[in-house]
Amino acid sequence: MKAIVVHAARDLRVEDREMPQAGPGQVLVKMAAGGICGSDLHYYQHGGFGTVRLREPMILGHEVAGHVASIGSGVSGLSEGQLVAISPSRPCHDCFYCHEGTPQHCLNMRFYGSAMPFPHIQGAFSEYIVADAAQCVPADGLSAASAAVAEPLAVCLHAAKQAGDLMGKRVLVTGCGPIGQLCVLVARAAGAVEIVATDIAPFTLSMAEKVGASRIINMAETPDGLAHYHTDKGHFDVHFECSGVAAALVAAIPALRPRAVLVQLGLGGDMTLPVQAMTAKEINFRGSFRFHEEFRTAVAMMQGGQIDVTPLVTHSFALDDAPAAFEMAADRSQAIKTQIVF
Amino acid sequence: MKAIVVHAARDLRVEDREMPQAGPGQVLVKMAAGGICGSDLHYYQHGGFGTVRLREPMILGHEVAGHVASIGSGVSGLSEGQLVAISPSRPCHDCFYCHEGTPQHCLNMRFYGSAMPFPHIQGAFSEYIVADAAQCVPADGLSAASAAVAEPLAVCLHAAKQAGDLMGKRVLVTGCGPIGQLCVLVARAAGAVEIVATDIAPFTLSMAEKVGASRIINMAETPDGLAHYHTDKGHFDVHFECSGVAAALVAAIPALRPRAVLVQLGLGGDMTLPVQAMTAKEINFRGSFRFHEEFRTAVAMMQGGQIDVTPLVTHSFALDDAPAAFEMAADRSQAIKTQIVF
Amino acid sequence: MKAIVVHAARDLRVEDREMPQAGPGQVLVKMAAGGICGSDLHYYQHGGFGTVRLREPMILGHEVAGHVASIGSGVSGLSEGQLVAISPSRPCHDCFYCHEGTPQHCLNMRFYGSAMPFPHIQGAFSEYIVADAAQCVPADGLSAASAAVAEPLAVCLHAAKQAGDLMGKRVLVTGCGPIGQLCVLVARAAGAVEIVATDIAPFTLSMAEKVGASRIINMAETPDGLAHYHTDKGHFDVHFECSGVAAALVAAIPALRPRAVLVQLGLGGDMTLPVQAMTAKEINFRGSFRFHEEFRTAVAMMQGGQIDVTPLVTHSFALDDAPAAFEMAADRSQAIKTQIVF
Amino acid sequence: MKAIVVHAARDLRVEDREMPQAGPGQVLVKMAAGGICGSDLHYYQHGGFGTVRLREPMILGHEVAGHVASIGSGVSGLSEGQLVAISPSRPCHDCFYCHEGTPQHCLNMRFYGSAMPFPHIQGAFSEYIVADAAQCVPADGLSAASAAVAEPLAVCLHAAKQAGDLMGKRVLVTGCGPIGQLCVLVARAAGAVEIVATDIAPFTLSMAEKVGASRIINMAETPDGLAHYHTDKGHFDVHFECSGVAAALVAAIPALRPRAVLVQLGLGGDMTLPVQAMTAKEINFRGSFRFHEEFRTAVAMMQGGQIDVTPLVTHSFALDDAPAAFEMAADRSQAIKTQIVF
Repeated sequence: MKAIVVHAARDLRVEDREMPQAGPGQVLVKMAAGGICGSDLHYYQHGGFGTVRLREPMILGHEVAGHVASIGSGVSGLSEGQLVAISPSRPCHDCFYCHEGTPQHCLNMRFYGSAMPFPHIQGAFSEYIVADAAQCVPADGLSAASAAVAEPLAVCLHAAKQAGDLMGKRVLVTGCGPIGQLCVLVARAAGAVEIVATDIAPFTLSMAEKVGASRIINMAETPDGLAHYHTDKGHFDVHFECSGVAAALVAAIPALRPRAVLVQLGLGGDMTLPVQAMTAKEINFRGSFRFHEEFRTAVAMMQGGQIDVTPLVTHSFALDDAPAAFEMAADRSQAIKTQIVF
Repeated sequence: MKAIVVHAARDLRVEDREMPQAGPGQVLVKMAAGGICGSDLHYYQHGGFGTVRLREPMILGHEVAGHVASIGSGVSGLSEGQLVAISPSRPCHDCFYCHEGTPQHCLNMRFYGSAMPFPHIQGAFSEYIVADAAQCVPADGLSAASAAVAEPLAVCLHAAKQAGDLMGKRVLVTGCGPIGQLCVLVARAAGAVEIVATDIAPFTLSMAEKVGASRIINMAETPDGLAHYHTDKGHFDVHFECSGVAAALVAAIPALRPRAVLVQLGLGGDMTLPVQAMTAKEINFRGSFRFHEEFRTAVAMMQGGQIDVTPLVTHSFALDDAPAAFEMAADRSQAIKTQIVF
Repeated sequence: MKAIVVHAARDLRVEDREMPQAGPGQVLVKMAAGGICGSDLHYYQHGGFGTVRLREPMILGHEVAGHVASIGSGVSGLSEGQLVAISPSRPCHDCFYCHEGTPQHCLNMRFYGSAMPFPHIQGAFSEYIVADAAQCVPADGLSAASAAVAEPLAVCLHAAKQAGDLMGKRVLVTGCGPIGQLCVLVARAAGAVEIVATDIAPFTLSMAEKVGASRIINMAETPDGLAHYHTDKGHFDVHFECSGVAAALVAAIPALRPRAVLVQLGLGGDMTLPVQAMTAKEINFRGSFRFHEEFRTAVAMMQGGQIDVTPLVTHSFALDDAPAAFEMAADRSQAIKTQIVF
Repeated sequence: MKAIVVHAARDLRVEDREMPQAGPGQVLVKMAAGGICGSDLHYYQHGGFGTVRLREPMILGHEVAGHVASIGSGVSGLSEGQLVAISPSRPCHDCFYCHEGTPQHCLNMRFYGSAMPFPHIQGAFSEYIVADAAQCVPADGLSAASAAVAEPLAVCLHAAKQAGDLMGKRVLVTGCGPIGQLCVLVARAAGAVEIVATDIAPFTLSMAEKVGASRIINMAETPDGLAHYHTDKGHFDVHFECSGVAAALVAAIPALRPRAVLVQLGLGGDMTLPVQAMTAKEINFRGSFRFHEEFRTAVAMMQGGQIDVTPLVTHSFALDDAPAAFEMAADRSQAIKTQIVF
């Protein structure tokens, strides 16, 4: 079977791999769709990010869905041919973070397509994959493309949980990549009354408006576009920061109400922040990282119609066109979410 | 001008009252619509409830909306002719509950149409009323009928706040009177993935389904209709108890997950509860009473289209037909919310 | 080796059992001290409680501490001869309640000395026991008697967590058995400024005063002893209900402030409660059941000197005097916590 | 009467002012003790801080206590000669932040000794002051020196509330000025099991140890003194950052557990922070600013003996020696809290 393997920056290959087999408690899945995430792109473009570097070839991919091909012993609740969204989160369930209910901080996490430990944790962009039954969430009624969006949607649901109840709230979303778009959808589904989205790319902003932003602001064109929200100590109750860019965060602070929750999803290294203003306003800055049980919620909310991600999957490429797919995924003038079709 | 005055149980009169005038910081409102609440009905049917009894004639009504007729000095942000929803909540802003941000427990509350203190706090079912500008929330874009639903909707938004984040949650609503219906709407707007509603009246159940319940259960017909949800220690994350009937609460406990939040809105006197089971499951029972700042949120969510209450206003009566309106309001076979049109 | 086995109500025997051996990841502990809990007493006095009944002989006991006798393979961090407090909580770490961080609701819990499943889960009142290393918390610096109080202390720390921050709060404790006493100690350690304790037994009340209650009230002598706290809608921020008696709970409601947290620890069957008053005051009633990670905290707080449980261990009996120990444990005129010394 | 007035940087004068009189609802207080705060020092040393600059002479001081000299009409609960701690927090109780229960963000706040609005809000370092009765908290049983510490203690209690329940927690305090010292005391009173304090001044560290720190680390001597706490993704549950120095904050991040709460009290301008690490660890950074109802709690906790601030008042100066007092307040080699005795 074929898999998409990154060897080094700009060195992406479609290679043959051994066909795996489902053991007890496991499932063999024939892959259907896989979305390219920002971290996949980083490995492809830069061979890593921050201090994390590729040290051996690694299969990419962790936003995947496919059909059950065969079922190992002791597995119930799944049937052959069934579409499943596959969670890439594999905590140990045995360290103290797992015991405390925060498996996203598992000391022994094996998250698909991650170069953090060595040997690296191989990813899921392959024609077949063997997964634990517990990773496979039935996605009946969804398209494979939507099912493959469960993972980034789970990231945003986890972020929303950090923000608490969004009903009736005024929400700011900075950065309109796939995560920002999904935050707009999530805020809308959770009953926010006002959602303002900012970015510097016209295409991503127009998509944000399409999926539910009340107002969009192009910060490249109107750098003081948030000044309107500075009166009475600020306007927004919640801020989802999805850009990872210090300028976006800094520009947002004066527009946040005292005690606003700022959920940081973007990963962008060191930033110089107005800590004095954040302190005087009692800003509640909360990092949000990955997810766990929100993966099932993501599938359930797409199935229930509360969230429709179909407009976000803007491009699909065949497995053999993986390099072209990665190039497209990086093009913010026309792509939101680019997927591989297996 | 005319007003709807209750003198004693079953003694409801349309009487003349002095025309009031707006003082500084106040607004004179020409009433447009007023909904009959369960507490209005109690005064009409029983002359009070619990230990609270009528001791003098009292104008009823606290779910009201109208048009600004004249504006006192020092008021900004309102214009003549504008539709406003009028909050009946008038805390003192000066006792320690107010200072702590829980004005619903104000020691000096003057809530419209309430016989709790003496002299009673007169209500708002009159052709004109003078209100503080702070009570008047502009309701542009809404019908008067919808604007008059802001009050019970605020009650349900307050209840939802006790429950925390509802996104992706499984919600049980027991009791499908107006409050139960609004809880269904609120849970839907907040992203709940499953909403099961119970009652014993077919009409109210069919309405609950119409406004968003995933499933309805007539507990008179199938008393064990929740048994399906007992497995694995229970199913529902959140329970809005809107019936005030012990049987509804008792039947629900085994269907709630450990650590579920049970928000009690129904007011029904003493109840015999399975405290041992509630303790072993660590049920979080939270009383919810009235509201305050949620009144503005209620108007905003109707204006933004997150919540549409129009199906719930099933009947309207002219002011002079007040007694007939009160009879209709009590008829659970055909009425959800009955309003007076002034 | 000997063990304390209950066969039926009032049929308690000291019997011989096979000596166990520590497997991989396990530890053999030579028992030192074991406290008699209310549930042990229920099995002894009534053969069960509620619908839970003894169906086969069961070793009692789950409040235990001892010295490490031998260590299985793969265990680190423990040494022979070391005093350990042994947690009786053995969740599966694999069901969804465990995954969510609420192992006290584990679907496959095997809690020592519990007749809930069949075959029953045998308890820890035996001369030796094999436990998982994860159950054994080093208790260096403590007496065996104090270490054996870690379990009920963990129950109270878990209850305190339901109540949130206690610093500067006014706390009511109803029921001054061992759990009530420990709630007084915990509230004191957490910075409560006022702790009022009620009971009907003079001895338990005097002990509550000794360990930190600001004021004690004998409700048998002065049934309206809480009336003083009814003004301004109530006085106490937090209520730990440790009696399981409806009268205690009912008498407390008017003395609680609006939005007070009532943590129910006492297990007492059905109760008739003033639900209307609880709703109007927005009382936050939270069941609290068992504990998990609080067991380690309990040991740490005794080691750090934040909590001193020594006054509470009022009586000790030799293993062969187990029946006498159980009689003493039931005597509220002179015993708080009665322990077996092995 | 005399007052301590700052005219510009390094221009501090003891001047005559008109004797004030208590109006209705007010109290005339004969000042007894007043502590010099960091913000007072900033006005004295630099004529302001950040963008806030002195534009007219301003009486300094907001940490004050004194004896009731005369009582205006309509005041109850206070008696002549009684010692009172005076809260400098005077919110309007009428803006929406006040209504929401966050008066520390009042849009019309008049906090003593603040140059933020113009005309400036005059402070309390004068022989007599007229205060609203609601500002005056009876401090019977305390020394005037302790009563004058209620204000900074309230700041720390407010910070602790941001951190939630501290019982059994591991706490890091960076910066051992008066606020850091009080955070140590508060963490101890709230049941923290471990309190590590860092600073670069030996004297402040030795005081931190004296008032309850489990361990002190001089970061000037051992810059990697926190490396010990980096294992298993970090150690501390809660971090009170009281230095306002970026280096302290940056050094602490790797020592914090995932999902730790970092309460920022220090006010120190822009800082370059490791936002990526804070995000991946889901650090909960919460600014904490001033206080409100915690002022009463502060007095109650000192009266109840939960907190003893007496070791922290290291120096007292007569009113006429105000400049010397301000010099001493800045000397971290021997002073924690320096007070003026009136």
